[in-house]
Amino acid sequence: MFGAIDHIGVAVEDLDEGIALYRDRLGMREQHRETVEAFGVEAVLLEIGGSHIELLTPISPDSAVARYLDRNGPGMHHVAYRTDDIDAALERLRESSVRLLDEEPRAGIRDSRVAFVHPKSTGGVLTEIVQPSEDTHG
Amino acid sequence: MFGAIDHIGVAVEDLDEGIALYRDRLGMREQHRETVEAFGVEAVLLEIGGSHIELLTPISPDSAVARYLDRNGPGMHHVAYRTDDIDAALERLRESSVRLLDEEPRAGIRDSRVAFVHPKSTGGVLTEIVQPSEDTHG
Repeated sequence: MFGAIDHIGVAVEDLDEGIALYRDRLGMREQHRETVEAFGVEAVLLEIGGSHIELLTPISPDSAVARYLDRNGPGMHHVAYRTDDIDAALERLRESSVRLLDEEPRAGIRDSRVAFVHPKSTGGVLTEIVQPSEDTHG
Repeated sequence: MFGAIDHIGVAVEDLDEGIALYRDRLGMREQHRETVEAFGVEAVLLEIGGSHIELLTPISPDSAVARYLDRNGPGMHHVAYRTDDIDAALERLRESSVRLLDEEPRAGIRDSRVAFVHPKSTGGVLTEIVQPSEDTHG
């Protein structure tokens, strides 16, 4: 159903400090930066072996990432799996009685289509399904 | 410095429930099961696109994973990056003033060599470096 770990979402207080860590100290390549209004975040993707670290910082105080930081402080926020057919993946998850936060895919970073699964169905791990845009490479 | 995300460590109360989720509902291949006495855990690796989900459940009440479960409940515990030279990687991290929990590599799952980085140096993300055994495939 899934081809790979697409990314690990990491909540940070400060994007530039996060970039200094993952790019300068851990040696990952900074690949993309985007404000994703629908999720109330500014995000940076750093590439590692075909997967990514996705640094997330809130631009809105009522975004999920802002609430996460308030409750937990910075740290791992979610894991995302890559699929080439998100509609089929969501249908299979529903058939397996996995509870979805997004019944229909919504627009994500880099024109991807994404949906979140309820962490109660995935052992406390906030899980995202991502179908990358066809013109996304790397 | 790192070739890929080697695995995401996920703390679970019950390994079989975790396998039912990741193998049966999310479609990953169960690859390996091992008791890692040094870490006080029983672990299962499920393969996804060259990376893994590593399910972890405590076999000792004073293991780090037992303490994590007590504090947080089940969820994402750590992320591990793969290297083919862990000694060089640790030296580079030290040179970048990254604080290590393990100054020297220790024995990990499947005869790997592993070391943990202090989460205070990595934005709250417990981070592991893994050099797989040369006879580990997949």
